[in-house]
Amino acid sequence: MELTQQQLVQWRREFHRFPETGWAEFWTTSRIADYLEQMGFEILLGNQIINRDFVRGRQQAVVEKGLANAVAYGAKQKWLEKMDGYTGCVAVLDSGKPGKTLALRFDIDCVNVMETKAPEHIPNKEDFASLNDGFMHACGHDGHITIGLGTALWLSQNKDKLSGKVKIVFQPAEEGVRGAAAIAASGVIDDADYFSASHIGFCADSGTVISNPKNFLSTTKIDIRYQGKPAHAGAAPHLGRNALLAAAHAVTQLHGISRHGEGMTRINVGVLKAGEGRNVIPSKAEIQLEVRGENKAVNQYMVDQVMRIANGIAVSFDVEYETEIMGEAVDMINDTELVGLVEEIVLAHPKVHSANANYAFNASEDATVLGRRVQEQGGKAIYFVLGADRTAGHHEAEFDFDEDQLMNGVNIYTALVQRLLG
Amino acid sequence: MELTQQQLVQWRREFHRFPETGWAEFWTTSRIADYLEQMGFEILLGNQIINRDFVRGRQQAVVEKGLANAVAYGAKQKWLEKMDGYTGCVAVLDSGKPGKTLALRFDIDCVNVMETKAPEHIPNKEDFASLNDGFMHACGHDGHITIGLGTALWLSQNKDKLSGKVKIVFQPAEEGVRGAAAIAASGVIDDADYFSASHIGFCADSGTVISNPKNFLSTTKIDIRYQGKPAHAGAAPHLGRNALLAAAHAVTQLHGISRHGEGMTRINVGVLKAGEGRNVIPSKAEIQLEVRGENKAVNQYMVDQVMRIANGIAVSFDVEYETEIMGEAVDMINDTELVGLVEEIVLAHPKVHSANANYAFNASEDATVLGRRVQEQGGKAIYFVLGADRTAGHHEAEFDFDEDQLMNGVNIYTALVQRLLG
Amino acid sequence: MELTQQQLVQWRREFHRFPETGWAEFWTTSRIADYLEQMGFEILLGNQIINRDFVRGRQQAVVEKGLANAVAYGAKQKWLEKMDGYTGCVAVLDSGKPGKTLALRFDIDCVNVMETKAPEHIPNKEDFASLNDGFMHACGHDGHITIGLGTALWLSQNKDKLSGKVKIVFQPAEEGVRGAAAIAASGVIDDADYFSASHIGFCADSGTVISNPKNFLSTTKIDIRYQGKPAHAGAAPHLGRNALLAAAHAVTQLHGISRHGEGMTRINVGVLKAGEGRNVIPSKAEIQLEVRGENKAVNQYMVDQVMRIANGIAVSFDVEYETEIMGEAVDMINDTELVGLVEEIVLAHPKVHSANANYAFNASEDATVLGRRVQEQGGKAIYFVLGADRTAGHHEAEFDFDEDQLMNGVNIYTALVQRLLG
Amino acid sequence: MELTQQQLVQWRREFHRFPETGWAEFWTTSRIADYLEQMGFEILLGNQIINRDFVRGRQQAVVEKGLANAVAYGAKQKWLEKMDGYTGCVAVLDSGKPGKTLALRFDIDCVNVMETKAPEHIPNKEDFASLNDGFMHACGHDGHITIGLGTALWLSQNKDKLSGKVKIVFQPAEEGVRGAAAIAASGVIDDADYFSASHIGFCADSGTVISNPKNFLSTTKIDIRYQGKPAHAGAAPHLGRNALLAAAHAVTQLHGISRHGEGMTRINVGVLKAGEGRNVIPSKAEIQLEVRGENKAVNQYMVDQVMRIANGIAVSFDVEYETEIMGEAVDMINDTELVGLVEEIVLAHPKVHSANANYAFNASEDATVLGRRVQEQGGKAIYFVLGADRTAGHHEAEFDFDEDQLMNGVNIYTALVQRLLG
Repeated sequence: MELTQQQLVQWRREFHRFPETGWAEFWTTSRIADYLEQMGFEILLGNQIINRDFVRGRQQAVVEKGLANAVAYGAKQKWLEKMDGYTGCVAVLDSGKPGKTLALRFDIDCVNVMETKAPEHIPNKEDFASLNDGFMHACGHDGHITIGLGTALWLSQNKDKLSGKVKIVFQPAEEGVRGAAAIAASGVIDDADYFSASHIGFCADSGTVISNPKNFLSTTKIDIRYQGKPAHAGAAPHLGRNALLAAAHAVTQLHGISRHGEGMTRINVGVLKAGEGRNVIPSKAEIQLEVRGENKAVNQYMVDQVMRIANGIAVSFDVEYETEIMGEAVDMINDTELVGLVEEIVLAHPKVHSANANYAFNASEDATVLGRRVQEQGGKAIYFVLGADRTAGHHEAEFDFDEDQLMNGVNIYTALVQRLLG
Repeated sequence: MELTQQQLVQWRREFHRFPETGWAEFWTTSRIADYLEQMGFEILLGNQIINRDFVRGRQQAVVEKGLANAVAYGAKQKWLEKMDGYTGCVAVLDSGKPGKTLALRFDIDCVNVMETKAPEHIPNKEDFASLNDGFMHACGHDGHITIGLGTALWLSQNKDKLSGKVKIVFQPAEEGVRGAAAIAASGVIDDADYFSASHIGFCADSGTVISNPKNFLSTTKIDIRYQGKPAHAGAAPHLGRNALLAAAHAVTQLHGISRHGEGMTRINVGVLKAGEGRNVIPSKAEIQLEVRGENKAVNQYMVDQVMRIANGIAVSFDVEYETEIMGEAVDMINDTELVGLVEEIVLAHPKVHSANANYAFNASEDATVLGRRVQEQGGKAIYFVLGADRTAGHHEAEFDFDEDQLMNGVNIYTALVQRLLG
Repeated sequence: MELTQQQLVQWRREFHRFPETGWAEFWTTSRIADYLEQMGFEILLGNQIINRDFVRGRQQAVVEKGLANAVAYGAKQKWLEKMDGYTGCVAVLDSGKPGKTLALRFDIDCVNVMETKAPEHIPNKEDFASLNDGFMHACGHDGHITIGLGTALWLSQNKDKLSGKVKIVFQPAEEGVRGAAAIAASGVIDDADYFSASHIGFCADSGTVISNPKNFLSTTKIDIRYQGKPAHAGAAPHLGRNALLAAAHAVTQLHGISRHGEGMTRINVGVLKAGEGRNVIPSKAEIQLEVRGENKAVNQYMVDQVMRIANGIAVSFDVEYETEIMGEAVDMINDTELVGLVEEIVLAHPKVHSANANYAFNASEDATVLGRRVQEQGGKAIYFVLGADRTAGHHEAEFDFDEDQLMNGVNIYTALVQRLLG
Repeated sequence: MELTQQQLVQWRREFHRFPETGWAEFWTTSRIADYLEQMGFEILLGNQIINRDFVRGRQQAVVEKGLANAVAYGAKQKWLEKMDGYTGCVAVLDSGKPGKTLALRFDIDCVNVMETKAPEHIPNKEDFASLNDGFMHACGHDGHITIGLGTALWLSQNKDKLSGKVKIVFQPAEEGVRGAAAIAASGVIDDADYFSASHIGFCADSGTVISNPKNFLSTTKIDIRYQGKPAHAGAAPHLGRNALLAAAHAVTQLHGISRHGEGMTRINVGVLKAGEGRNVIPSKAEIQLEVRGENKAVNQYMVDQVMRIANGIAVSFDVEYETEIMGEAVDMINDTELVGLVEEIVLAHPKVHSANANYAFNASEDATVLGRRVQEQGGKAIYFVLGADRTAGHHEAEFDFDEDQLMNGVNIYTALVQRLLG
C-alpha cells in the first residue's frame, strides 16, 4: 500500500459500497482490521475497547441481522470472534520511545437512508453505490475511515521519526451519539495527552477548515417504556393498568419541564407508540425522546427531570417502567494550544486557503464524549471541520463529497502527529 | 317539661336561633346537655364519644371562632370543659333490666348559609331567625335535635316500661359527612343491637315516610396539599419546585381515573387554589376533591387511585405533599326487620298516610357510617325519611319546614323503642 | 339442493375455508349470490343496499388486497361488478300476496385471527381450516351464513304458503360494528314490519336459546388524526406544530370526560401512534378510541365530547385534524310480541330445552342499528342467541362450534316466517 | 420655590408620606399638578395622555378605594375632574423657539408593602413614614417624582435659554409594567426627538451611573378567566361545564409551549384559583401568568401561543373565556448618541465618579414601551440607572435611599436638556 490519492479513493469507495448501521459495522470493522494488520498495528477489539455498561441504543435484532449480512459479505471469522458482538476497533502504535500519547478518532457507521438511483449520482455512475439496501454512507463516515487508514499508513511508514504512542480509534455508532460513551468508559484512551477528531463537509467547503467550532450542544437520547395490564375496556376497565394513558401524561409533563435560568434547553418527545387495540386497556407504551442543554450541567438538569417524571408517572398509573439512555453527547471547548496548532498547519497547507475559528456548531457530536474524557484526565482536545464540497445535504439520498479533500485530512492529522510526537 | 307540640316548637325555634357549623356546635351541645341533665340522663362528652384520630374536616380557626361565639351566647363552662374542644354528646338511659341496646342518632350542625331577610319567611315573621350571621339551620337539623330531645323526654318518663338500654347520639358535623366516623371509632355504640336515624323533609312531603331509601352513595372527601419551593420566574425558574403545575397535572390525572366495571363512580375536584404571585414559581397548592362510588368497594377503588396519583405527582414534580380525609360516608342497606317494623308503626299512625319503600336516596349521609358499624358488630340498622312540607330546597336561604311533623317523628322513635325494648 | 343437515354442514365448511375480513367479503358475497340465484331470489348488491356516506372503518388497502384474493379464489366477475367495491347482499322474496314484510339479518365477515394448527382442531382434522392466512371464522359467522342460506332454501321451496315479503340481509363488516349503519341508511329494510337477527354460541350452550338478551351497549368507534408541521427539534422547535403533543393532551382530556348522571359510560383510547423521529418535532399522530354508553343518548353525549375535544386540541396546538367514525352500535330493546313468539317456537322445538329471557348481553352488536331502524319506522325487532357448545372462546384460534345447532337455527327462522307471514 | 437640596428632600418626604398604588395615584397626581401649575406649566391629564384601550391591570375596586382615600387626604377636585378616573399627568414646556422635542419620564406609583415600624428606619425617625396603610414607596418612585419636579423647576426658570419643547411625563402604574402602554398609545410623546428615563438605586451605589444597561426582558402579563356552568357533582356531573378542569389543562398546555430557537423564553402560571365547593362542578377559574422573551418578537411568540391555548381550551371544555393583558414591557437598546452624552455629563459631574456601560438589567421596565415608541417614530432614547446607596433591597419594608443623590439626578436631566435644546 502506498499513501496516494488513488489509494484513498479506492478505500473510500470500498467502504461506501457496504455501509453498515450503528453497532452493526461487522464487515466494516473486519475490513479495517485487515488493513491495520497488514500495516503492522496492534489491534484492540470487543471488550478491550467497549465497556458494555455504557453501550447506548444497540438493538439486538439490528445487530443480528447486521452480523448475518456482514458474514455473507465476507467479514472474517477471526475478527468477529474478537469483536464478540461489539463493533469498532483501536489501532495502537507504540514508537518504543518515551513521549506523549495522541488519540485520533474516526467514526465508521452509516445512516438509514436509501441511496438515490439517479444516474448522475457519482456512486451510481462509477459503480460504488450501496449494496446494502436501505443503508448509505450519506454522512461522509466512509471518508472518515479513509482518512483514518491513510493516517495509519503514514504512521506505519514513519514510526521511527516519532516518540510516544498513537491510538487510532475507529468508533462505531456515532449516529444517534451512541458509541463514544462505551469507548470512553473502557478507559482505552485514558492515557492520551492529546485527542483529535473531525468531520468532513458539514457547512464548510473545499479548501477551508473550521479550527474551532463552538456551541456543541449537550444532548441525551432516552427511551421510556411503560408496561401495564390489559383489560376489557367495556366490561372491566378498572382491572387494567393503562400504559398509554400513562405515556400521554408523561408527554404532557415532559414538555412542561421548566426552562433553566443558566442556559438554553430543549425537550422533544419525537415518537410515541402505545396500545394493542381499540377495545383493550392499553398495556404497552414506548416514548422516544431527546433533551439538550447549552452545556453539560444544563443538559443533566433536563435528564434528571425526565427520570423523575418517568418514575412519578409509573407511581401515578401503577405501571412498570424502564428508561434507557440511547445516546449522549456533551459540549466541549477546544484547547487553544491545539486550535493554534491546527491553524498553523492549515494555513501552511497549499490546498487549504482559510481557517475559521468562530463557527457555531449548534449540533451534537459524540466525539465530545471522548474529547472531554481526555480533558478530564488532564489532556487536551480538539474537534475541527474539514471543508469539502457536497452535492446535497448530509443524510440526504443524493449526498456525495469532494474526494480530493481526503488527502488534506490525512495531511492535517500527520502534521499534528509530527508536531506533537515528532 | 311536658311532651307537647308547644314544647317541640319552642325547642326547635331556640336551636334555630343560634345555628352552629360543624365541629363548632359548642352552645348547641351545651344547651342539649342542659335539657338532658334536667331529664336525668347520664351524658357522655368529648373523649367519651369522639376518637380524635377519626375526626374529619375540623378546622382549628373555625373551632376557635365558634367557641368564642358560643361562650358569648351563653354556653356553660362545665359542659365546655368536658367537651374539651370536641362537640356532640350521647345520652344514656339504662333501664336496669336486661335487654337489647338501641342507639338513636340525631345530627346537630347547621350549614354556611345566610338566612333570608324576606319578611314572609316564618323565622323572620315569628322572630326566631338566625342570630349567628352567615349560618343557618337550612337543612332541618334543628328539627332533628328537637325530635331527639322529645324522644329523650318520653324515655325519661317511661323508663320503667322498658328493658335494656337506649343511647341517644347527638352527632356533630354531619354536613360534609365529617362527624360520624369519630363517634363510630370511639366504640360508644358498639354494644347496640339496633340503630335508627332519619332525615326530615328531603323529598318527602308531610304525612309520608320513606321506610327504605336505597342507593346511599359511598363518598370520601379528600384534600391534597402540595408544598414546593418558590423561585424567581424570570431569573431562576429551574430552582423552583412548582406546586401549582403539580396540582394542575394532578387534576388532569384525577379526572382520568378509569370508570369501574362494577358500579357507578364520580370524581370532582371542586376547588383548587395555588400560587403566590405572577412572577414567582408557585410553592403552594391545595386541591379539594370528592369521590363517590355505587358501594363502599367501588368508592374505595376511587380513594386508592386518588392516593396513588397524589403520590405520583409529588414524585414527578419533586414536591412534598399531604392528603387529608375531610369526610366520608358509606352505602348502607336497611335491615328488613326494622323496615317492616317502621312500616307497621307508620301505617298505624293516624297522621301518616303512606310509606314508600323504594325511594332512591342518591346522596350521601354519614349516619350510614354508624349504621354499618352496628351491622358489622351483628346489629341491625335503619335510616328512614320523615316527610315534611318545605318552603324551599334544603340548603337554600328560604328553607323552612312543617313543624307539625316533629311530633310524628317523636312518635315513630318512641314506638320503635316500645316494640324493641318494651 | 335439499335442506338437510349434510347440506348445512357442507355450506358452513365451504365458507369456513375462505374467511374474509370486514368490507373484503368479495368471494363470500359472490358465493352467497351464486346459491341465492340458484334458489331463484332477486339479489340486491352494491349501491342498492349500501349508503356509502355511512360506511364505517373501510380501509382501501384491505379492500384491494381482499378483492385480489377473492378473484384469485374464484369470485365471479358479474357479482363483483354489481358490488362495485362494497360487499354484502340482500335476497328478496316477494310472495305476490299482500302481507307483512319480514327482514332477517346474517353477518358474513371473519376475524383477524390465525387459525390454530393443532391436529385435534376439527377444521384441521376434517380438512376445512382457513386457506386465507391470518383470517379465521372464529366468531361463528360461517354458521350465520349457513342458517341464512338454509332459511332462504326453505323459503324458496315454500313461497306459495306465504303472504307478504321476506328480505334476507347478508351483512358485511359486523366486527368493529361497522357494516350495519350503511345498510340501514340505504333504506333497504325501511319497509320491514318485523326484524330478526341472532348470534350463535356466545354464552349459551347447545339446546338453549336466550330469547331476550338485555343491556346491549351503545358504542361508537372513532379515529382522530392530527397533522402538524415537522421542524428540527434542536435548532427551530418553535417552527414546528407538534401533532404528538397535541395527541397526548387529547388523550388526557378524553379520559377526563365527565361521568354521566343518567347512565354508565366508557372511554378508551386504545391505540396511539405519533411521530417520525426522535429529533424532529412530530407532525403526525393517530388516536384510535371507543366510547360506550348505557343507552344511545348517553353514548351520544360521549361522542359529542370527543368531537369537541378533538377540535379544541387542534385549536390549541395549531394543527389540522380529522375525525372518522369507524363503527357504531346502539342499544335495543326486544319487542315483547317477538320475544313471546320466539319462546313459543323454541319451547315447542324438540331439540331446544330452555329459553332464557334475562341474560345481560353487556356487549355491542350492530344488528341493533338495523333493529332500531325498523322500530323507528314502526316495526318490531328481536335479537336472540342460539345456544351452541364451543371448543374455545369467540375470537380464539381454537374456536369451533357444535354444527348440530345449525338446523335448530333454520327451524326457528322458518317457524318465525310461518307465524308472521303464514 | 428654589432648586435646593432642602426643597428636593421636602418633596420626596411629602410624597413618601402618602404612597398610592398603580392607577390609584389620585392625590399624588393632584399634588404634582399643584406644583407644576405654580411653575407655570401647561398640564395634560386624563384622556389627553391616556388611551383607555391600552390601560393594563387597572382594577375598579382598587381605583375606587384609592380615589376615596385621595379625596380624604386632600386631592383637589379640579384635577380629579380632569383626570376622569385615570391618573398621571404630562407637563409641557414650549420655548416658543423652533427646535427639538425632548420627553422625560418619571414614574409615580408605590408598591403594596407595609412599611417597617423599626425605629431606626429614617422615615420613622424623621416622621415621614407612610400614612397609607399597606402601601409604601419602597421602590424609590418618590425620588423619581422629586427629580421630575426639580427638573421642571429648573426648566421653568431657564426657559429663555432653550429652543424646542420639553414634555415631562409623570407616569402611573409602572409596577406590573402596566401604565406606559396607555400613555404611548395616546400619542402624547409621538413628536419627541429624544426620550430619557431612569431608575434610582437598583444595583448601583451612590456616585455611579449605569449609562447603558442591557438585556431588558420583554414581558407580557396575562390573566385568563374561564366561566363554565355549575352542576351537582354527584347527581348530574354531565350538566356542568368544568372551568377548573379547563384551567388545569390550560396550565399543562401553557407550560408545554415550545422553546424558541432564536432566544430565551419564560412562562409562569403564578396563580390559579378555581371552584366554588367540593361537591359542585366548578364554574369559575382564573389564571394569572406571565411570559418573557429575549426580545419583543420572541415574547410575542409566547403571547400568541398563550392566546391560542386559551381559546383551544375553551373549545375543548365548552366554557366561555376572556383574556386580559395586565402589563407589558419590551426590550430596548439605548441609542449610542445619548449614551455618549450621558457619559460625558456624568464624568464631568463632580459627585459622580464612574459610568458603567455594560450592566445586564435582566428585568423588565415599562419605560421601554415609551422609549421604543419614540425610536419607532425616528427619535432616540436612553434609560440609565442613577446610583444611590440603599438600606435594603427594592420592595422591602426597610427600603430607603440616599437622598443626596436626588440633586445629581436633577443635574443630569438639566444638563441633557441644555445639550439637546440649548
